[in-house]
Amino acid sequence: MVQLYDDERIDFLLAKENMRIIQSPSVFAFSLDAVLLADFTYVPKTRGKILDLCTGNGVIPLFLSTRSNVPITGVEIQERLYDMAVRNINLNQLGDQLHMIHGDLKDMPAYYGNDKFDLVTCNPPYFSTPESDRKNLNEHLAIARHEIHCTLDEVVQSCSKLAKSGGKVSMVHRPDRLIDIIESFRANKLEPKRMRLVYPKEGKEANILLIEGVRDGKPGLKILPPLYALTNEDEYTDEIREILYGE
Amino acid sequence: MVQLYDDERIDFLLAKENMRIIQSPSVFAFSLDAVLLADFTYVPKTRGKILDLCTGNGVIPLFLSTRSNVPITGVEIQERLYDMAVRNINLNQLGDQLHMIHGDLKDMPAYYGNDKFDLVTCNPPYFSTPESDRKNLNEHLAIARHEIHCTLDEVVQSCSKLAKSGGKVSMVHRPDRLIDIIESFRANKLEPKRMRLVYPKEGKEANILLIEGVRDGKPGLKILPPLYALTNEDEYTDEIREILYGE
Repeated sequence: MVQLYDDERIDFLLAKENMRIIQSPSVFAFSLDAVLLADFTYVPKTRGKILDLCTGNGVIPLFLSTRSNVPITGVEIQERLYDMAVRNINLNQLGDQLHMIHGDLKDMPAYYGNDKFDLVTCNPPYFSTPESDRKNLNEHLAIARHEIHCTLDEVVQSCSKLAKSGGKVSMVHRPDRLIDIIESFRANKLEPKRMRLVYPKEGKEANILLIEGVRDGKPGLKILPPLYALTNEDEYTDEIREILYGE
Repeated sequence: MVQLYDDERIDFLLAKENMRIIQSPSVFAFSLDAVLLADFTYVPKTRGKILDLCTGNGVIPLFLSTRSNVPITGVEIQERLYDMAVRNINLNQLGDQLHMIHGDLKDMPAYYGNDKFDLVTCNPPYFSTPESDRKNLNEHLAIARHEIHCTLDEVVQSCSKLAKSGGKVSMVHRPDRLIDIIESFRANKLEPKRMRLVYPKEGKEANILLIEGVRDGKPGLKILPPLYALTNEDEYTDEIREILYGE
């Protein structure tokens, strides 16, 4: 049995795996972005280890456990979400593979020291919001969505320090920040190697950016085929249905 | 009447405009890339002026003359191609609007001084080729395709110096150089604002990159809908046919 608080509910994460996830509209609910990152990223399959920063309710570690057998650790700064992530591990009986840390991603390089990762994933806050705009925001959602506890540069710096030389760092963000991301990646010795753009539907501008860099990698970017979220009839495309439901 | 040399021939550039172009397989033939850049780029319509670096046989100025009434100057370092570009202006009776300079793009900032452009376009050489790999290349084609007379950084630096503050710089290149291009744009005060990726067909990686920056612009990139060159039956897509033939 798993404890649910307030408006929490249990949703299916992956129907084909019978994987379920606790979330809450007022605290944290995973987005398509997280699932797309978990689908896009390289994963070490049987050797090595994975770290997921800004893990929220643990959606990315849960999803990655279906693609890899290596140990996966999630880091979450909000105690309320960390607690939800721990319950999600128990709910899916994944305690042997998944582990959660309640902490600040900026402290992780010092915490781990020379103990580096083969893959670091991150779905960071997207919005750099001035102090004055934050007054009326729900605090849990604000921390997940806005650069309150960490800036993009701080996130990239931590990712880079935590990755092995030759290890991968995968991130999902907004396309309008691509230039900042690339600049920050290169400044932190992460060479962007794979990129994919997600478009809400045909004829629209991209609204989700997936990017993967290699620590100390050589230059040379591949841009994967575009991914459309919706058909012209506003239904999930076949590729999205495959990712979400395995159909 | 226009003079043709060696294996030169006259091709249609734009059927709908009855525009024709002299080219030669052994010296210079325009590529889809140039036409896509001329279609993608912002143009000042009635005021201002445009400069096209690495103009080759003048394909981009010819194409842009159908979208704008402002003066357009092309710069070409190879005398043989410069001469072809001049004959292309005459062939299409565009001497009132188009002008060609035989010179090195690196000399243009000093030549023009404070006389800046509203738009600078460039389809530069794509390949950084070591000396030893160039021995057996046709010299005309090698200069057009390889970074022999100018590196990417030199091209971007010249573009930036020649653009007004708030003016645009549009470039076509290979996606694997995106990171270098963005880094060079920002280092030269060009903020990337619009980008479009061209894919050979569905399910393939992007093979052409179109990017436009604004001199002294504010951050914020838009990524336009993807463009496919060919259908699954290896025919031009409707959008390419529209660009090439106005169909």
